[in-house]
Amino acid sequence: MAKLPTPLRGVVPPMITPLLDRDKLDVKGTEKLVEHILGGGVHGLFILGTTGNAPALSYRLREELIERVCKQVGDRVPILVGITDTSFVGSVNIAKKAADSGAAGLVLAHPYYLSAAQAEILEYLENLAPELPLPMFLYNMPSCTKLTFEPAMVRKAADIDGIVGLKDSSANMVYFHNLQTVLRDKPDFSLLVGPEELLGESVLLGGHGGVCGGANIYPQLYVELYNAAYAKDVDKVNKLHDKVMDISNAIYSVGKYGSSYLSGVKCAVSCLGICNDFMAEPFHRFGAAQRKIIDERLVKLGIKK
Amino acid sequence: MAKLPTPLRGVVPPMITPLLDRDKLDVKGTEKLVEHILGGGVHGLFILGTTGNAPALSYRLREELIERVCKQVGDRVPILVGITDTSFVGSVNIAKKAADSGAAGLVLAHPYYLSAAQAEILEYLENLAPELPLPMFLYNMPSCTKLTFEPAMVRKAADIDGIVGLKDSSANMVYFHNLQTVLRDKPDFSLLVGPEELLGESVLLGGHGGVCGGANIYPQLYVELYNAAYAKDVDKVNKLHDKVMDISNAIYSVGKYGSSYLSGVKCAVSCLGICNDFMAEPFHRFGAAQRKIIDERLVKLGIKK
Amino acid sequence: MAKLPTPLRGVVPPMITPLLDRDKLDVKGTEKLVEHILGGGVHGLFILGTTGNAPALSYRLREELIERVCKQVGDRVPILVGITDTSFVGSVNIAKKAADSGAAGLVLAHPYYLSAAQAEILEYLENLAPELPLPMFLYNMPSCTKLTFEPAMVRKAADIDGIVGLKDSSANMVYFHNLQTVLRDKPDFSLLVGPEELLGESVLLGGHGGVCGGANIYPQLYVELYNAAYAKDVDKVNKLHDKVMDISNAIYSVGKYGSSYLSGVKCAVSCLGICNDFMAEPFHRFGAAQRKIIDERLVKLGIKK
Amino acid sequence: MAKLPTPLRGVVPPMITPLLDRDKLDVKGTEKLVEHILGGGVHGLFILGTTGNAPALSYRLREELIERVCKQVGDRVPILVGITDTSFVGSVNIAKKAADSGAAGLVLAHPYYLSAAQAEILEYLENLAPELPLPMFLYNMPSCTKLTFEPAMVRKAADIDGIVGLKDSSANMVYFHNLQTVLRDKPDFSLLVGPEELLGESVLLGGHGGVCGGANIYPQLYVELYNAAYAKDVDKVNKLHDKVMDISNAIYSVGKYGSSYLSGVKCAVSCLGICNDFMAEPFHRFGAAQRKIIDERLVKLGIKK
Repeated sequence: MAKLPTPLRGVVPPMITPLLDRDKLDVKGTEKLVEHILGGGVHGLFILGTTGNAPALSYRLREELIERVCKQVGDRVPILVGITDTSFVGSVNIAKKAADSGAAGLVLAHPYYLSAAQAEILEYLENLAPELPLPMFLYNMPSCTKLTFEPAMVRKAADIDGIVGLKDSSANMVYFHNLQTVLRDKPDFSLLVGPEELLGESVLLGGHGGVCGGANIYPQLYVELYNAAYAKDVDKVNKLHDKVMDISNAIYSVGKYGSSYLSGVKCAVSCLGICNDFMAEPFHRFGAAQRKIIDERLVKLGIKK
Repeated sequence: MAKLPTPLRGVVPPMITPLLDRDKLDVKGTEKLVEHILGGGVHGLFILGTTGNAPALSYRLREELIERVCKQVGDRVPILVGITDTSFVGSVNIAKKAADSGAAGLVLAHPYYLSAAQAEILEYLENLAPELPLPMFLYNMPSCTKLTFEPAMVRKAADIDGIVGLKDSSANMVYFHNLQTVLRDKPDFSLLVGPEELLGESVLLGGHGGVCGGANIYPQLYVELYNAAYAKDVDKVNKLHDKVMDISNAIYSVGKYGSSYLSGVKCAVSCLGICNDFMAEPFHRFGAAQRKIIDERLVKLGIKK
Repeated sequence: MAKLPTPLRGVVPPMITPLLDRDKLDVKGTEKLVEHILGGGVHGLFILGTTGNAPALSYRLREELIERVCKQVGDRVPILVGITDTSFVGSVNIAKKAADSGAAGLVLAHPYYLSAAQAEILEYLENLAPELPLPMFLYNMPSCTKLTFEPAMVRKAADIDGIVGLKDSSANMVYFHNLQTVLRDKPDFSLLVGPEELLGESVLLGGHGGVCGGANIYPQLYVELYNAAYAKDVDKVNKLHDKVMDISNAIYSVGKYGSSYLSGVKCAVSCLGICNDFMAEPFHRFGAAQRKIIDERLVKLGIKK
Repeated sequence: MAKLPTPLRGVVPPMITPLLDRDKLDVKGTEKLVEHILGGGVHGLFILGTTGNAPALSYRLREELIERVCKQVGDRVPILVGITDTSFVGSVNIAKKAADSGAAGLVLAHPYYLSAAQAEILEYLENLAPELPLPMFLYNMPSCTKLTFEPAMVRKAADIDGIVGLKDSSANMVYFHNLQTVLRDKPDFSLLVGPEELLGESVLLGGHGGVCGGANIYPQLYVELYNAAYAKDVDKVNKLHDKVMDISNAIYSVGKYGSSYLSGVKCAVSCLGICNDFMAEPFHRFGAAQRKIIDERLVKLGIKK
């Protein structure tokens, strides 16, 4: 099984969860999707995150997914598994399954139903980390969890054994740079950026990589962008960044609800013939009209022949 | 087993979940607490709500609690069971356990990790209701779920078979009156108010009752207040309402975090010798200093002799 | 000129500002509107509040309005003048004009562009109050100002000479009751509620009255509701409260923007032939189709013959 | 008088407003500050923005500042003047003063007391632009105004005669890149970034420059950073960006309130002997202890000898 590099660098796509029904994994689709993503040269794979809509899945299905994906990927790239849960016990159980299956690391947003204070979150992490069999990334996702991990708290958490990085999906780059600043003495603590629209600049400014949802659709683009940014090739970064923005604007804006991003990614991957686009409730796959728009845009973007 | 009245009226306390440890129910404490609450003359019992901190508990513990409480209560009062979950399958499973154990109804806030639109929530309810073995209350809890059930959507949901009421914890009484207005033609649809500080006025203005957290501590007070309001005895309402405010201000304001309400209720019930005050993570029971304050205030309030 | 009672009680309508154009007062319309409102038996008149859209008006126009309304009203009822401004100097200047013209009191929300802390607000009030020639009400309006006056801070402010009450437009009745509780030892401190949908219950529970926007349209209804609540006549309160809800739902919900309330009130008053419905930018009067709806609803409500 | 380049590029510092008292400009301090900033080689000067705390100043003082600064700067760099106001008439009046005094452009956030919809804002801009004697920048500042200019609306506004750019202070770089994407066909529309912590990356990714508050303290640093980014010198950008982060973390974090940034900048400039640090209410200059911290940090940062 692939080990977690220190620090983890590069593109680690948050895989969507292919479904045939509410509680039924699209096994064939998952297999094809894993190969599609790995074929793009990515540096890791993140399952059961927000893009994977993990909180909407039963524990049973989450465990099935972990087992299958870990087995299929083998030691090709390290696998990160989302263990975000409102219950401590729930997070630990998924973590154990992940370790048993050969995953390399875990990703955790804090319990998100009742809001907790920073000190409570820190104590939570101090209690949880020793119970976990794998290293863990923190996951800053305020739009879903109603709370931002404050930089001063993250700095303390970075001293807890087993906490090795943070994925930031706030889209607030001042916050990201504040994290980098307080963590200057921890060069092995990996700082990954969530929104793919920020991959180029965060890596140019010293970030370690990105968790790019678009890599479900077109993985090599984000890998190329990461490489260009790592090589400080600003012109190439701009060219590739423009393509990233084109995908964002074409594919994630079709639906009329906040779930447009998720529906768009799933629909696009389905249009590419990779897997089913069934969505766990309360969300729904696009109808025929919206699917046609996505399909045409994929052709126009040169992603679908 | 007690049936659900149509509409449900009165005081339906949201029971805290007595714990000995992270995943261990305080069985003796739970038994004492149930009798303490029922001894106050309440009209129902609501387990696994926000005050019960249900999302922080393992499914196993939730099922144990359902089984034990239903068995103990028998047909004395109807029991409502919270089935709020981020996963459809998770909600259905708890609902089945509740029905098998003899509960009378269910309470559901929508999936709360990724935000959904009103139309998506309505469709969720349309899909979920037929899968449930018991009638269901909606639970409006925007501070935890980031979303308010809009009155127009609630009006449509009230036409779905099996949806029989709504508990509103927004504290926004304009919203509550808007619900009453759109539901004038549905007199059997029960509208309960969450914050106990609003029990008096909501019942005076035609609401059906309240889900009063303070009834874990002093159940008869809220029952008396409900009765006074139902009888339109304004002077008595004011007198009892002042006591309710005194408890709120004395007991829920001791800690320095947003979890003060929960910690305060648990600590007070523990000071009364009823059950343990262990709190599921990421929250923590009060320390000795804070416990002393709670204890003294209970004496001063005349609740503890 | 009418003095401010201690405490101020009753219905104090927040008058809309009748305009002919961006910077031109509808003088005739203002005169008719003042008489229309006073004819309903109200206990005071509040000009240049949120319903008056004061921040959108030039200082010149505000001064003209103050002068004209004070002169017209004379000593019939006390007049409150909104002095909310982002600039200390601006607030003081309007206050002086109000005093010179014969107003009885002032109403102030804190500076609302850059957010200030509670301690900063308190110091602001301590500095401002001595500069003001009239007693002042605080104005809690978090949806516009991004900040709630915390009850503990209000309690301290209530000890400042010249601060005599608070108008709460939060719609959060738990907050309102918390204010009442911390101010129990200040029975002369007037607590008025903003949303007219809460007039009945707040007065039944010991509040002093309301600042009802609907009183621009149908002043006697709110006065009757206040009187019924003051007399603890719960049945009458419910009957009148239902009418208040009918007006809210019929008149404030026609437009598709957040400005629907303001546009609805202005349009309704205009349909009653009282004044022009021009709205200060960035808002706009209703078009013909929306005006027709308002007109028909006024007839159906029995307000227009 | 300096004309506005098309598009405006570079560093355009938002000048603090030196005060001796609530309504008294620090004339000498203003003169020294203007020379201090211009001495750093900046590309423009922005007065009466958020950093200038314009909404807290009387119109009289704003006009005095405009006149003095324009006269002093002459044709050395173009001057932008903030005309943000809750009143249309107020904005137009300041704009006229700016034009008469020789300013090059205007900066406007929308009326921010009552929230308006995007369509209302667009119409506001369509009505306002023809009344203005100078070209105008839009100012996206959601933390103060409660509203984000949506990219689709900005695209429409960019077609209005006289609207020539936008300053974005959201700190959300996904939003900034969305603006760049919808405005690809408008290469002369200037997109400036507010937070100085984002200057490097926004210029590397095609942005036109920044409105850096820290340039009140150390203007040449931001000019060098802009130049390095414009020249695509990634190593130099990183080195200078680290210094920018050091200043942010050292100077803007001393106070305990949200006003820390403003107090910190004013205190630092005062420690450098440039101008008084009086702050318009409801904010307050730092006390001796906090001033000592700022002073020591300025020495440690190498800014003060």
